[in-house]
Amino acid sequence: MLTISRKAQILPASPIRKLVPYADAAKKRGIKVYHLNIGQPDIESPKEALDAVKNFDGKVIEYSNSAGNLSYREGLLKYYKGIGIDLDLADLIVTSSGTEAVQFALSVTCDPGDEVIVMEPFYTNYNAFAIQNDIKLVPITTHIKEGFKLPEIEEFEKHITPKTKGILICNPGNPTGTLYTKEAIEKLGEIAKKHGLYIYSDEVYREFCYTDEPHYSCMHIKGLEDNVILLDSVSKRYSLCGVRIGAIISKNKEVMKGVLKYAQSRLCSPAYGQIAAEGALATPAEYFAAVKEEYITRRNVLVEGLNKIEGVFSPMPMGAFYTIAELPVDNADKFAQWLLEEFSYEGQTVMVAPAAGFYATPGMGTNQVRAAYVLCVEDLKNAVKCLEEALKVYPGRTNK
Amino acid sequence: MLTISRKAQILPASPIRKLVPYADAAKKRGIKVYHLNIGQPDIESPKEALDAVKNFDGKVIEYSNSAGNLSYREGLLKYYKGIGIDLDLADLIVTSSGTEAVQFALSVTCDPGDEVIVMEPFYTNYNAFAIQNDIKLVPITTHIKEGFKLPEIEEFEKHITPKTKGILICNPGNPTGTLYTKEAIEKLGEIAKKHGLYIYSDEVYREFCYTDEPHYSCMHIKGLEDNVILLDSVSKRYSLCGVRIGAIISKNKEVMKGVLKYAQSRLCSPAYGQIAAEGALATPAEYFAAVKEEYITRRNVLVEGLNKIEGVFSPMPMGAFYTIAELPVDNADKFAQWLLEEFSYEGQTVMVAPAAGFYATPGMGTNQVRAAYVLCVEDLKNAVKCLEEALKVYPGRTNK
Repeated sequence: MLTISRKAQILPASPIRKLVPYADAAKKRGIKVYHLNIGQPDIESPKEALDAVKNFDGKVIEYSNSAGNLSYREGLLKYYKGIGIDLDLADLIVTSSGTEAVQFALSVTCDPGDEVIVMEPFYTNYNAFAIQNDIKLVPITTHIKEGFKLPEIEEFEKHITPKTKGILICNPGNPTGTLYTKEAIEKLGEIAKKHGLYIYSDEVYREFCYTDEPHYSCMHIKGLEDNVILLDSVSKRYSLCGVRIGAIISKNKEVMKGVLKYAQSRLCSPAYGQIAAEGALATPAEYFAAVKEEYITRRNVLVEGLNKIEGVFSPMPMGAFYTIAELPVDNADKFAQWLLEEFSYEGQTVMVAPAAGFYATPGMGTNQVRAAYVLCVEDLKNAVKCLEEALKVYPGRTNK
Repeated sequence: MLTISRKAQILPASPIRKLVPYADAAKKRGIKVYHLNIGQPDIESPKEALDAVKNFDGKVIEYSNSAGNLSYREGLLKYYKGIGIDLDLADLIVTSSGTEAVQFALSVTCDPGDEVIVMEPFYTNYNAFAIQNDIKLVPITTHIKEGFKLPEIEEFEKHITPKTKGILICNPGNPTGTLYTKEAIEKLGEIAKKHGLYIYSDEVYREFCYTDEPHYSCMHIKGLEDNVILLDSVSKRYSLCGVRIGAIISKNKEVMKGVLKYAQSRLCSPAYGQIAAEGALATPAEYFAAVKEEYITRRNVLVEGLNKIEGVFSPMPMGAFYTIAELPVDNADKFAQWLLEEFSYEGQTVMVAPAAGFYATPGMGTNQVRAAYVLCVEDLKNAVKCLEEALKVYPGRTNK
């Protein structure tokens, strides 16, 4: 029988992509759409990365080492040393994107039916990866009024069962922009140690922290070497989303042995991507300083702008380039679609990502949206203005 | 408990890679090692592909469409039209390598415990993909004395159970170099039709056929549109193994809907790889003619050379760039290791891939090796000479 698998049936289509046809239709009607829905930065990739590829003179684009090009891995070791993470070569495998890093981590540590705790709202594709690996994601709800801070230990312990293999965090977080404090991360370490859990630590937004303290990684926690699996990517760090290069890092030898077998079965990571990523290691500090400054400006424009709109609330995110905002609407899905289908202000409208898709618990986030500040300041101002005007006339507005 | 998953435990390490440390040690002792073990062609990638990347002027390497860049997909439609396969855009999704194409096909069509029939010897990583997807590979043995031809219908029917979801073929085949005839493929089509099975058709060596007839694809079988899933890659076609670009193709709408959800969850295929692959579409016919001529020469040198060695038999492969040879040895694993550890002839030796790793049935292929003819003629001649001398002195030789 030519049927498709259960997994293929239950995999959700991306909650963001559902709105794409409406955005396309709006554009066809001549309306300018401000994309607050996406995580694709407009920041230029570092010249060092682009030039490395342009200057590559190989005549055959060959398979590379399954663990990644040696020169790139050696370069990465220096990068991590620079942020206080001392690694051996065997602790790191280059992956074909951060996605693959998460997939490897879950596949290598979890059996079907195992549980992984995750703070909701979370990156929606975690859900897809869990389905693909037959894993049950167990959400702990974090709250917008508390800036989505890490839950208390008791809250974790309520959710730990004999099936729990680990805790998956994203720090700084997509979709919330929340940056966990050193104290919070150490608390998490205690829980992992006590219960023998992995910490899957997605830190792809590490370079986008807006406090004065350096990013505190789960890899910095002392005595937790066997528990922590670091998931990384160059996509956001260097605005190289398209190269599909990430890394999976752990001091746990058994884990890395398993990861290597998975890596060998898919042969290697993209050759050009590795060349770009290796080139990007030479990106000067000024690049990051300028990018950070730009994001702080954008964040302030967006978040302050949102909070000035009556009935709207957004915490001030301290990392990444997203925020979650609560809107005075009946249903953010309907509102987002209405923005594209029925609304425009001076020929412009906004596309946002309804936040319900970032929650696992039904009914959560229905009056929230995720907004990314990856557009220039002028566009962000216009987008905020559009939202303000839209909320004045949206038929499903819940308070005045 | 910090355990690793059952899958990570049972995933086999690559049977070829096991020998790499011995090859490295031999090189350290100053011995030249001829690598007949690998599938990495030395053929230059087309200039059109390399130039497309060099000339790319984008300033941000962005996420691309999850289904692949539109211009590349449109180009691919023309390529397939040129080989008699008419496709709509919705029938094709660009993948991050042929590996991903196989993984998507199995994930989207098979539930855990489902069975997929495969002709052994087969590409070893099929086994890894089956383990990763909780699928049982059901091997049908093909035989070296019959040139590894497709088994008879009755043989298939003996292996079909209610759990069978499909038949996975590689045509032309790795590791055998066998090219299935049009009649054989149509016979396969009848079986698939009668039993409602998918045909997963891995045709990544399509351009390497050494008969006068054009390659007959499973996509050419009439009335089998819903059954066939074509798995493709640019790795071998354009000697672009490192770009990690493939494609999955089917007229089955439900399958492609499922594949798209998987594709969206990993965001996109490598940007640079897609640029190279799109550039490669302009590769002139002369490139392929020259490559084919070169491979035919190499094949003849290798296979004729092997058959001249007493006690060695290899069928003449009609596709790809591999052959399986039967050797007069007790155990090809031991022999391959001995070649690297204890043997040299005029400061040279050979690395081969023991064939047992390409079989699922224990005990099969123990006196066989896979040899790839991806080296220049001079090197192949030297490699054959080494093998000849080695077999004269190998202590485990089984006949004289």
